[in-house]
Amino acid sequence: MTSRRDCEALDAQDPLAALRAQFTLPAGTIYLDGNSLGVLPASTARRVQEVVTREWGEDLITSWNKAGWIHQPLRVGTKIGRLIGAREGETLAADSTSANLYKVLSAALELIKRDGAPQRRTIVSERQNFPTDLYIAESLAAQHGFTLKLVDAEEIGAHIGAGLAVLMLTQVNYRSGRVHDMAALTRAAHAAGALTVWDLAHSAGAIPVDLNGAEADFAIGCGYKYLNGGPGAPAFVWAHRRHLERMDRDGLWQPLAGWMGHAAPFEFSSAYRPAPGIARFACGTPAVLSLAALECGVDSVLAAEPLGGMAALRRKSLALTNLFIRLVEERCAGHGLELVTPRDESVRGSQVSFARAEGGYAIVQALIERGVIGDFRAPDVLRFGFTPLYLRFADVWDAVEQLRQVLETGQWREARFNVKAAVT
Amino acid sequence: MTSRRDCEALDAQDPLAALRAQFTLPAGTIYLDGNSLGVLPASTARRVQEVVTREWGEDLITSWNKAGWIHQPLRVGTKIGRLIGAREGETLAADSTSANLYKVLSAALELIKRDGAPQRRTIVSERQNFPTDLYIAESLAAQHGFTLKLVDAEEIGAHIGAGLAVLMLTQVNYRSGRVHDMAALTRAAHAAGALTVWDLAHSAGAIPVDLNGAEADFAIGCGYKYLNGGPGAPAFVWAHRRHLERMDRDGLWQPLAGWMGHAAPFEFSSAYRPAPGIARFACGTPAVLSLAALECGVDSVLAAEPLGGMAALRRKSLALTNLFIRLVEERCAGHGLELVTPRDESVRGSQVSFARAEGGYAIVQALIERGVIGDFRAPDVLRFGFTPLYLRFADVWDAVEQLRQVLETGQWREARFNVKAAVT
Repeated sequence: MTSRRDCEALDAQDPLAALRAQFTLPAGTIYLDGNSLGVLPASTARRVQEVVTREWGEDLITSWNKAGWIHQPLRVGTKIGRLIGAREGETLAADSTSANLYKVLSAALELIKRDGAPQRRTIVSERQNFPTDLYIAESLAAQHGFTLKLVDAEEIGAHIGAGLAVLMLTQVNYRSGRVHDMAALTRAAHAAGALTVWDLAHSAGAIPVDLNGAEADFAIGCGYKYLNGGPGAPAFVWAHRRHLERMDRDGLWQPLAGWMGHAAPFEFSSAYRPAPGIARFACGTPAVLSLAALECGVDSVLAAEPLGGMAALRRKSLALTNLFIRLVEERCAGHGLELVTPRDESVRGSQVSFARAEGGYAIVQALIERGVIGDFRAPDVLRFGFTPLYLRFADVWDAVEQLRQVLETGQWREARFNVKAAVT
Repeated sequence: MTSRRDCEALDAQDPLAALRAQFTLPAGTIYLDGNSLGVLPASTARRVQEVVTREWGEDLITSWNKAGWIHQPLRVGTKIGRLIGAREGETLAADSTSANLYKVLSAALELIKRDGAPQRRTIVSERQNFPTDLYIAESLAAQHGFTLKLVDAEEIGAHIGAGLAVLMLTQVNYRSGRVHDMAALTRAAHAAGALTVWDLAHSAGAIPVDLNGAEADFAIGCGYKYLNGGPGAPAFVWAHRRHLERMDRDGLWQPLAGWMGHAAPFEFSSAYRPAPGIARFACGTPAVLSLAALECGVDSVLAAEPLGGMAALRRKSLALTNLFIRLVEERCAGHGLELVTPRDESVRGSQVSFARAEGGYAIVQALIERGVIGDFRAPDVLRFGFTPLYLRFADVWDAVEQLRQVLETGQWREARFNVKAAVT
């Protein structure tokens, strides 16, 4: 049996332990929800204040040049790119994940249509994909005369065939934490003549990603989860340069053709001419305050680079999730928790989910009252995110101890834990 | 001739003079660019800091309920609604102006298509409309099989006829400051069987707007100009309730069908079901930090309500622009400045633009060096915005005096003023 002392020993040897000091963490809280909203980097408050009071308040419009606001989307995007196997200038930070998915999926459908093959009219995705991805795909499928086919994770391979236009997947499932094999699925999709769109919402900053290595086609992702960019932070968008070059060559637009994606926005020309490269995926004026916060968050992940970067973060992430699984199964046995996340660490993201037939929501609420923040995902999943930047092995032990107490005392059955809040 | 003392007397009698204290204004600057980027309200820095350090840093995900983040887009939208003749709950703050235009113009085209009349396939807009509006319209026209027809302002009436699907106009032209008659044009468009989409980028907080009074169909607008929401602030979107009710009834979507526009986002259903009312125009997760700043900005305009609101702001705005026009024509006569903005105040926004055959950019740069911030809009327009919330009549006098000196000394001819920056 693992003891708390064993966990403390692991912390003492943790080569990434110093990264925790980058964050402002609320006292008395073990935060296992960095996969929903990352914590606050200590640098963010200062930086946002500087943007508000000096860059905006004092320098006003001159900051578009002087403070480099105009370059922010590409600068922050390029930093994110270092975490996902993108080259410099291939990634743009902008808009929301949903809006960015709309842009790249539109572009992918347009490329497919241009290549003929009218039988290729199916978008395949996972039934358990995050809803917003499915809604956007449903919207675009209807507009473009495609069919959205939702299949279970294990059936995806069987649906990669002649009719496939785009395989659109979230690499790490938000509920189960299962990881799709980006390289293998992209290869299979390409062999079938299809394109891939990858949602990296639970990948960027969570697991090593190599978009160029996998020859992926398009990708988007979220700024406010593992990238610690703050609530509603701008998202990001990436496209393989073979598609960017083709879009340049053929004069293809993405549909959200706002002025910031124009080749020369300050010429105020009445005719659209897309900017070259990934900049064509910009739309409106960049959200300067939110981008400043996002940059601090991304920097907090990049701070791991001298310590081994995403590979080192991945080692610790797996050590944390392995420990959590083992401790829950040792110490909370007989309480009906069923592991949803793969036991095979090669296909596990940076989270652990358990299903429970009854009381999942109330158990999460009772844990929150005890300072252990996880979340509940309908209908029956207790979800715990593990962010190696700031979590300690002793935190894992303490979290499991609280879970054990909630289950053994039956405290979660109290009425107050069963009242549903507006947002779970 | 008007003297500086006369201007000081006007300031002494100004019933809105106290509103200036709401803002943090850089010393030694006369800011005539609030129509590009509004100034910083003093409350914003504190409020943003509170959101960052307490709501995000301490309360983390619980702030979605506890701090009301989830209600922010409708709450801030409803406040903006008070400035534009919207009822409670009819306006949503979200995304960028460009993205919101994409949503409402798509919805308008979809409504037109559903009503048959296949000859009605033209979107009419103004040739001198702000480019991003034209780009988005061009994108949607191509997608939906419509034609975008650009006409000069004075020709618009002649193009309202049987083929018209949507009349899409920016109410106040960004370059000339000319105001379109929203009520009359909407009436004419409706009589022809068409719909209207109004961009209020230079209207909201600048002139009185009555969307419901005009029976307008759809509107969008910008948060970072006269609403003082900060660089890249979220924009807003409005739709008349007859269209919202119809979209509810017929189950119509807007294309950016992200999860925040779902009727029950936290059910995580795989099928989209649009939220009722304006909430269907939400897309991704709200940009909490930027929305907090925008709310402070909107509050700075609403602070005029006890003093007469938009009607009082309008009176002062016209007094400021009338004074500026008169002083420039008195004191800078013979220097080739030609008034572009209408002399008729009933069709003038809250800005004054002058064209000059030569040197416009350099003159603006020379003024900026002297602390008078205006901007240049290619090819030949010197543009000055007047925001009655914080500008004084003496500021107008001082700005004209600097302009006079720049012109009389020929200082703008110096090489350093003629070097083009990346962003003008």
